[in-house]
Amino acid sequence: MQQVETQLDTLKSQMEAIQGHSPENKLAMVVFSGEMDKVLASLVIATGAVAMGMDVVMFFTFWGTPVLRDKDKTVGGKDLMGNMFGAMLPKGASNVKLSQMNMGGVGTTMMKSLMKKKNVASLEEMFALAEELGVRMVICEMSMDLMGFKREEMINYQNLEFGGVAKFLEEAGTSKVQLFI
Amino acid sequence: MQQVETQLDTLKSQMEAIQGHSPENKLAMVVFSGEMDKVLASLVIATGAVAMGMDVVMFFTFWGTPVLRDKDKTVGGKDLMGNMFGAMLPKGASNVKLSQMNMGGVGTTMMKSLMKKKNVASLEEMFALAEELGVRMVICEMSMDLMGFKREEMINYQNLEFGGVAKFLEEAGTSKVQLFI
Amino acid sequence: MQQVETQLDTLKSQMEAIQGHSPENKLAMVVFSGEMDKVLASLVIATGAVAMGMDVVMFFTFWGTPVLRDKDKTVGGKDLMGNMFGAMLPKGASNVKLSQMNMGGVGTTMMKSLMKKKNVASLEEMFALAEELGVRMVICEMSMDLMGFKREEMINYQNLEFGGVAKFLEEAGTSKVQLFI
Repeated sequence: MQQVETQLDTLKSQMEAIQGHSPENKLAMVVFSGEMDKVLASLVIATGAVAMGMDVVMFFTFWGTPVLRDKDKTVGGKDLMGNMFGAMLPKGASNVKLSQMNMGGVGTTMMKSLMKKKNVASLEEMFALAEELGVRMVICEMSMDLMGFKREEMINYQNLEFGGVAKFLEEAGTSKVQLFI
Repeated sequence: MQQVETQLDTLKSQMEAIQGHSPENKLAMVVFSGEMDKVLASLVIATGAVAMGMDVVMFFTFWGTPVLRDKDKTVGGKDLMGNMFGAMLPKGASNVKLSQMNMGGVGTTMMKSLMKKKNVASLEEMFALAEELGVRMVICEMSMDLMGFKREEMINYQNLEFGGVAKFLEEAGTSKVQLFI
Repeated sequence: MQQVETQLDTLKSQMEAIQGHSPENKLAMVVFSGEMDKVLASLVIATGAVAMGMDVVMFFTFWGTPVLRDKDKTVGGKDLMGNMFGAMLPKGASNVKLSQMNMGGVGTTMMKSLMKKKNVASLEEMFALAEELGVRMVICEMSMDLMGFKREEMINYQNLEFGGVAKFLEEAGTSKVQLFI
């Protein structure tokens, strides 16, 4: 009898260890490229995942960072490089281009009108939906620092977070699904 | 004794819960970009995974969609946009280009002749192998709708499926490995 | 009593099966694209993951392969194609370009000077750090063969390995996190 109790205790603690390590029903994505089609794909996956009961965290890094700028916000006090990057990079989701077949902007315009016609939500609408559904968004601080972006020029998004690679890895390590887009 | 039975029952149901949630020996891939080198990589990974005993599901979306068109099939009844996209996008795996060093097609041609010389299977041969090995392929319906593609113009591939983001997430959520290519 | 022992044994073997299948605290990455920004991202993630106690394996394939060439090593005995690829592809981490906004090299130079100014480590420094931290790197043999690269022209990196898709899948299948970059 004593022995059975001991075995039960061992099993119980092993079980707890497994439960402590098993991933959550969560999706962690890196949004690196910031192009219209890839951001659209990431948002379709993100909102779809929430609709299926998953938690979702999106990490916007490098070219993904300017997509989260608010096109109506302007901040001063930047140095030369900051001003140059600020001018050259797309200002917000309405200004991004296709990764292929952009054709000087014609392809992107065609795709936008096509999306409207086929009732596919625009990037701005997808961001609004993502916010409503509680998709968490994190902006990479190293990228912001590199490109000279300030927090004040980012979109108003509930629970917008700022963080580094450690934050991503923490989330990715406890997620069922991870994608680099 | 009674207590031991109760503890055993608790452990058993916890165990079943864990087994129900543990991922299958499966690989789920999104094939987004549709370029020759990336499609080749996805097919090498897919067929390699089946050879190692894994189940594989590939989701062709956005630029990946036209890769699954059959170059010998023509369908009518498309609107203007559908005809334009149909003409501009590559028709099938033999018409895709490299993502880098395409150089107006020269790079792609060089790569193809190099692959032949080095006995690396072509994309068409890789698709045939994938079919033989039972790799599942799903085409994104939203992408097909956007680009005006019809089911009748897709390649003959055993068990070719049509679906949306929910289908991908369902598979990804029960897979050991997920990749966005 | 007999019955309890049997149930305990069943539970124990189920537990062992689960423990045998549960992923290691490991990150497996495919570095496919070989562009400066993407390689930087992969190295930031890799070194960050080691710092958080994870094992990391990076698989350099296709355009990622030339990044691991040593710019000071030259090997002879290549055929025409090998010489052409050798000349056209970047020779090592100091010669790679941005995936976007390269602008004939101006963008890449700007980014490099910006990284220096903001104290972001260069690719070469990141590779040295990765080596020190014990990040494992594997070069895809099929890619090397295709592009005509030889082992002797690769960087000196402790425990540099050479392998194929099976090696990647083996690592990915036992990893918590997988990314295709």
